[in-house]
Amino acid sequence: MSDSRIPVAVLGATGSVGQRFVQLLAGHPWFRIAEVVASDRSTGKSYRDATDWRVDASMPDGTAGLKLKDYGDELDSPVAFSALPGDVAGEIEQRLAKAGHAVLSNSSTHRMDPDVPLIIAEVNPGHAKAIERQKSNRGWSGYIVTNGNCSAIHLVITLKPLQDAFGLESVVVTTLQAVSGAGYPGVPSLDMIDNVVPYIGTEEEKLAEEARKFLGTYDGEFHMGDFVVSATCTRVPVRDGHTEAASVKLRTPATPAEVIKVFQSFRGRPQELGLPSAPKRPIVVRSELNRPQPALDRDTERGMASVVGRVRECPIMGIKYVLLGHNTIRGAAGASILNAELFKEEGLLPL
Amino acid sequence: MSDSRIPVAVLGATGSVGQRFVQLLAGHPWFRIAEVVASDRSTGKSYRDATDWRVDASMPDGTAGLKLKDYGDELDSPVAFSALPGDVAGEIEQRLAKAGHAVLSNSSTHRMDPDVPLIIAEVNPGHAKAIERQKSNRGWSGYIVTNGNCSAIHLVITLKPLQDAFGLESVVVTTLQAVSGAGYPGVPSLDMIDNVVPYIGTEEEKLAEEARKFLGTYDGEFHMGDFVVSATCTRVPVRDGHTEAASVKLRTPATPAEVIKVFQSFRGRPQELGLPSAPKRPIVVRSELNRPQPALDRDTERGMASVVGRVRECPIMGIKYVLLGHNTIRGAAGASILNAELFKEEGLLPL
Amino acid sequence: MSDSRIPVAVLGATGSVGQRFVQLLAGHPWFRIAEVVASDRSTGKSYRDATDWRVDASMPDGTAGLKLKDYGDELDSPVAFSALPGDVAGEIEQRLAKAGHAVLSNSSTHRMDPDVPLIIAEVNPGHAKAIERQKSNRGWSGYIVTNGNCSAIHLVITLKPLQDAFGLESVVVTTLQAVSGAGYPGVPSLDMIDNVVPYIGTEEEKLAEEARKFLGTYDGEFHMGDFVVSATCTRVPVRDGHTEAASVKLRTPATPAEVIKVFQSFRGRPQELGLPSAPKRPIVVRSELNRPQPALDRDTERGMASVVGRVRECPIMGIKYVLLGHNTIRGAAGASILNAELFKEEGLLPL
Amino acid sequence: MSDSRIPVAVLGATGSVGQRFVQLLAGHPWFRIAEVVASDRSTGKSYRDATDWRVDASMPDGTAGLKLKDYGDELDSPVAFSALPGDVAGEIEQRLAKAGHAVLSNSSTHRMDPDVPLIIAEVNPGHAKAIERQKSNRGWSGYIVTNGNCSAIHLVITLKPLQDAFGLESVVVTTLQAVSGAGYPGVPSLDMIDNVVPYIGTEEEKLAEEARKFLGTYDGEFHMGDFVVSATCTRVPVRDGHTEAASVKLRTPATPAEVIKVFQSFRGRPQELGLPSAPKRPIVVRSELNRPQPALDRDTERGMASVVGRVRECPIMGIKYVLLGHNTIRGAAGASILNAELFKEEGLLPL
Repeated sequence: MSDSRIPVAVLGATGSVGQRFVQLLAGHPWFRIAEVVASDRSTGKSYRDATDWRVDASMPDGTAGLKLKDYGDELDSPVAFSALPGDVAGEIEQRLAKAGHAVLSNSSTHRMDPDVPLIIAEVNPGHAKAIERQKSNRGWSGYIVTNGNCSAIHLVITLKPLQDAFGLESVVVTTLQAVSGAGYPGVPSLDMIDNVVPYIGTEEEKLAEEARKFLGTYDGEFHMGDFVVSATCTRVPVRDGHTEAASVKLRTPATPAEVIKVFQSFRGRPQELGLPSAPKRPIVVRSELNRPQPALDRDTERGMASVVGRVRECPIMGIKYVLLGHNTIRGAAGASILNAELFKEEGLLPL
Repeated sequence: MSDSRIPVAVLGATGSVGQRFVQLLAGHPWFRIAEVVASDRSTGKSYRDATDWRVDASMPDGTAGLKLKDYGDELDSPVAFSALPGDVAGEIEQRLAKAGHAVLSNSSTHRMDPDVPLIIAEVNPGHAKAIERQKSNRGWSGYIVTNGNCSAIHLVITLKPLQDAFGLESVVVTTLQAVSGAGYPGVPSLDMIDNVVPYIGTEEEKLAEEARKFLGTYDGEFHMGDFVVSATCTRVPVRDGHTEAASVKLRTPATPAEVIKVFQSFRGRPQELGLPSAPKRPIVVRSELNRPQPALDRDTERGMASVVGRVRECPIMGIKYVLLGHNTIRGAAGASILNAELFKEEGLLPL
Repeated sequence: MSDSRIPVAVLGATGSVGQRFVQLLAGHPWFRIAEVVASDRSTGKSYRDATDWRVDASMPDGTAGLKLKDYGDELDSPVAFSALPGDVAGEIEQRLAKAGHAVLSNSSTHRMDPDVPLIIAEVNPGHAKAIERQKSNRGWSGYIVTNGNCSAIHLVITLKPLQDAFGLESVVVTTLQAVSGAGYPGVPSLDMIDNVVPYIGTEEEKLAEEARKFLGTYDGEFHMGDFVVSATCTRVPVRDGHTEAASVKLRTPATPAEVIKVFQSFRGRPQELGLPSAPKRPIVVRSELNRPQPALDRDTERGMASVVGRVRECPIMGIKYVLLGHNTIRGAAGASILNAELFKEEGLLPL
Repeated sequence: MSDSRIPVAVLGATGSVGQRFVQLLAGHPWFRIAEVVASDRSTGKSYRDATDWRVDASMPDGTAGLKLKDYGDELDSPVAFSALPGDVAGEIEQRLAKAGHAVLSNSSTHRMDPDVPLIIAEVNPGHAKAIERQKSNRGWSGYIVTNGNCSAIHLVITLKPLQDAFGLESVVVTTLQAVSGAGYPGVPSLDMIDNVVPYIGTEEEKLAEEARKFLGTYDGEFHMGDFVVSATCTRVPVRDGHTEAASVKLRTPATPAEVIKVFQSFRGRPQELGLPSAPKRPIVVRSELNRPQPALDRDTERGMASVVGRVRECPIMGIKYVLLGHNTIRGAAGASILNAELFKEEGLLPL
């Protein structure tokens, strides 16, 4: 029986986010993994033999037998999901885009490039228009699209309906981030048993800058959103699921009830189009006083929702709330896949 | 050999903070534990037999043999340290104060009473003057002095020199609190393995209100400090040591270097008087990017310092930093003991 | 559309194991939850309002609206799954069995009764014959069937094929148990952050005795298996999944390869009958040196398998290995449900 | 004021065990750290600048200013404490021993060499006699003495009085080991949040073999103890303190009360000599059902005792108990220092 699904490649497939791509794409209705690519230490081995599979008990059978390709190899798949480490992503992603591939990337390397869109499918699907300029600027037949830092994605999903309804002026946010975002081996256990680390390198800057690009406009060039984010990013002993305490100053003041209402009614293009990976509700509001909690709420809507709780008045900023989201699903691999689904429906994939 | 130290009682001696009192008072140069008091379930047992000692391997020999008194018993000691649970503290502390005892209390019950001082020895020793009014108001020969919520104490220690040097306008703070503050059994392990709980009942209100009383003035009555605190309080999988991410708006803007300088040069009455439990430096500033951390820094100055790091600009509030402090030492029992030492030197104990 | 599934009751439905029953029975092909029963504090409330749901983000809609019945109420369902606490299970389960219900119980109260079968569906389905004697002994129209301690179930699943193939002489086992078995609030977080507790009350005795009943025979009365178990039971900071290090002396010595082979080929009645909750493989053998691990392996076969690794020679006992199993699925609620499925197919339910 | 203490070097001083040496030697009455040695990445830097100090808040002032020497440098100190990683220890330790230094090593490299003693000061101080043969065999003016694997040391301390009183036949032991033994970064946090890893490479073999050397005899050559150890070694989410569940078959059966008595009365040469680092009681027996626990008991006798609890009958092996010990103090650096103190008093240091 022939498989008419679109063949895709996963770059950096053996790593933490790469494994999440492989897990989420298993049984995907539109895409099938045809190629897995890793650094040359693994080339020629099967995915099964090269990978210390850690996202659940056992890797999907379909991918396990694939031979790993090298970063330098040509690829046949029109679509490449990139989970490459930042230090190699730049050159490899550019080469593939030049060669005609749609590269949907988790790497931070190109996120802030002036002709590379940084997209959350529900938030700024229109930024995809920048692809045309990118291709002509660079003389590429393919393109790079990025999907943002894990903490930024969930914060921005909650800021988007606030921006639309009330306007945004400023956001003070403290994150309590899970360790899975740092990959494996990643954060040492001596840092995470009976401890908190109040610093994650470059994370605060990414959160602040990416939020303004996501929530900015594109009219041939990107204009940053007209608001300020001040972040403190900490690491806590949690496997998956970033928690964020946000205080937000809106341009038009709003009550907690009004804020909850815009959270609950928020929908975007993925919901309109009924994309396979789209959560029914991009934002799920919990009414319990002590929620959201990572152990209980990170898998809401198969890890694709941002979960909000404790919406209340902030005597300084106006509104404050706690948000939580799965960092390697909606905050990474799942975000790329949702972007790819959106692009397919919008006719933007190079098929 | 006779022991000329001042006899003291510990109320609620078998609980979590009570045990910390017993530990810290072992070998104290000025005070000796003469009486231990607990709820009637334990009355008549020895402290050894009634207590599930948990602050370290073994309880101090001197206290282990004491017979537990009941909440209702008369006490002989002029000074009583109270680690009573909130639901019984009110009546018991009042009765003892009426009977002439100096009650130094950790309980929240009387903290915001209009004639009860809420004191951090370095911050507002002058509030002790309210004792006279309290005694005359209530017709008591003794008095109640309180020492504040564990998160409030450490935040306020860092705010005090800022207030003195630059003036305070507002503070947005997110806490990552240890479990020991909730006592034993306290927080269930299912809440703290691979999880964060973004809520601690009444903690945010206490933090906001107590900070304003600590940093307010007393001129026969208390005047709250003229600034606003907005807090989000969370519980994280840490045994001891509260971490707090604070963004502060000062009345006169200051650079991070200026802020670090006032932190480092901060000294109070306990340092002037050389009190036995006084930290040499009430605020210790760490220069490493990833500090303070609870596992490494909570025992700084025997748990009596507030440790600050990551002092940097906040694009919204002006200044932000991370602070950490031991919640059951400086944040509870140690704070009471330091207050008692201050009162002894100031001639305020009913000896 | 009428629902022809068998109505069942869940006793102790608001607790930890009770919630697991509700979760696992949602969408069950043969059973539907018709009644939920809890202590009288909750009677009359909806399940939604009375339950602090904690096994995942949200309780199943179908059960959420049910009104809670009291322990003393009559029940309409022919089948009752019991997750009652030990102190009340005895009387309630007996009353229901007398009234004609099939009570499938997780409580330890009746497990070692001489006419109550203790059944793992793959291990000793034939012990169901004791039901007849139980009914006639006690003059009941219903009956009680129990399913054993969580650590015992997984150990016994691995011992059964060894007993069949080689005979059992003795087992030295150390368990590293998850906290969920102790319910909520259960184990305090101060016991589980940076700590291990090397003791679980009565657990070692249960493990030793229940193993001998499971692996014994029934010929009108129960005869204990002719082997000895010596256990040390510890609690470790894990949410779900008990790990056990077992050293086994067989009557006929066997090599690790032979042991692995009997583990892998083990099948029982649930597999023959294709029961809905039956794992395809009751024992899954991992070949990696560092497996099984709770975070990675507890959900193997939807939590219904025992996962074994590190099968190797023991210079003292002959064979040693590490096993792991989900304690509230296969070790509790899932085991009861599988027993109920077996009984339905064997015509033993009072329908 | 001149310092007449013996100058010592610490090899591998920047690592986890190296830092523990530096911490424990600060203020030592007989030894002072004169030289710190690390890999060439750090050479020439001060200890302060090269070290990510992690054993407590701040490194000792006296050592902080020392310049780091390279592995290849000549040393002036007669005594060298080695915390070298296994892959470089062999050659470096040999070179130093040849050059006349007493090398007291934590590395596993030379532990099982036929002319290198493996010594616990309380257990087998007489093995020091092998130094003479080692020196003549190898033509060295100095020597190497080793102090064993962290889990082996604590197990052996508890086995020694049993061997003396009752004879040893076999030991089945399961360890629950802390992460600090693996150094920093060491064990990834993804392995230790909500997880257990049931495998530590080569640990089980070390435990079994070293126990037999420690408890064997020396008469010109080493004879292994005539008993068998079978170990399963696991890693659990604990910072410091290895827990071990041991079942022991004695040659002469003994009751739990008799075993407790020999544990409690056990004393060795360090106690006779009153060595500065010697615990008063090498074995501390806890009577509580749920002890020892790492968080509460690891610092017993400043981390130099083995703490035992739950001594009870084992229906298979005869006796079983749980033991706990600090893995980087008594199980590593502290053991070396105690050996050095013993050697000084015995006149074995090359002074």
